[in-house]
Amino acid sequence: MVPELDEGLPLERIKDFSLEELLGMAIKAEIGARKFYESLAERIDIEALKEKIQWLAGEEGKHEALLRRMYGTMFPGKEVVFPKEHIGPELRPVARELHGVQDIIDLIRWAMKAEEIAAHFYEELEKIVDTEEKKRLMRYLSDMEKGHYYTLRAEYELLLDWEMYGQMMHVGP
Amino acid sequence: MVPELDEGLPLERIKDFSLEELLGMAIKAEIGARKFYESLAERIDIEALKEKIQWLAGEEGKHEALLRRMYGTMFPGKEVVFPKEHIGPELRPVARELHGVQDIIDLIRWAMKAEEIAAHFYEELEKIVDTEEKKRLMRYLSDMEKGHYYTLRAEYELLLDWEMYGQMMHVGP
Repeated sequence: MVPELDEGLPLERIKDFSLEELLGMAIKAEIGARKFYESLAERIDIEALKEKIQWLAGEEGKHEALLRRMYGTMFPGKEVVFPKEHIGPELRPVARELHGVQDIIDLIRWAMKAEEIAAHFYEELEKIVDTEEKKRLMRYLSDMEKGHYYTLRAEYELLLDWEMYGQMMHVGP
Repeated sequence: MVPELDEGLPLERIKDFSLEELLGMAIKAEIGARKFYESLAERIDIEALKEKIQWLAGEEGKHEALLRRMYGTMFPGKEVVFPKEHIGPELRPVARELHGVQDIIDLIRWAMKAEEIAAHFYEELEKIVDTEEKKRLMRYLSDMEKGHYYTLRAEYELLLDWEMYGQMMHVGP
């Protein structure tokens, strides 16, 4: 267990929460993921990887904005409710110094897990929301998180062979 | 059939080519994909989508560089051989004016198809290359293309409801 990841509740607990709460959880998770990637990017000096992580941070920021707009149309004038609980792993900012590539590998593995569950979370939300429009948005977010998962898995795979990573990405060891 | 996509040979034809030829095809396909995305981005005035497509173009450019380095280590001093044939769909630059969102939707659907087959193509190459290092690179490329596939599928899904796309992405219709 790394400090940047809280395992959260299992996916089947979705039924215990209202749609309003679930959307609040989703927004909170996107904020957490953005801060996680921002703080991770700050601590990485491999330029190619740093850029990719910064890109992920930007994407999560866009998802937050999109979810807030959706929340606004569904609950006009209401402040977003952020439940204490959350479904699935929640990423937190990286507050420590990273020592070597193994630390980065560990964090990316957790981020993969969080992205994978986030994709399933949105798939479950798709079943709960009532209009085709909202279902479409949930499919959008689910597919985007799947895209992130594979992007991370690709980097993870190369990082496992650090010598080759440096050689292929033209970075110093 | 859209003019920007040549269906190419089926995946099982891989066995008819040498590894050198297959790598040449892969490099050619990455160049084609980059030019396709670059030309598509130029013809799209939806800022959010334009940026995503430009990002894809940049990624394909990096894959080309990575494959060329790999080719260089495997066939030192040799010019890359580009076979006339290619396995799976090959994307070509968009040379025409696009009229409306349906044209964009069609092109993105074809790009999804090309990315999906490219992911499988690299999975097949993984079986053919001889060292763990090269297999790792093939898994990297395969996962990246899967990431592209899901990123495109997400955009495709939203574009199908054009009114909502404008509303959610804060763009004009």
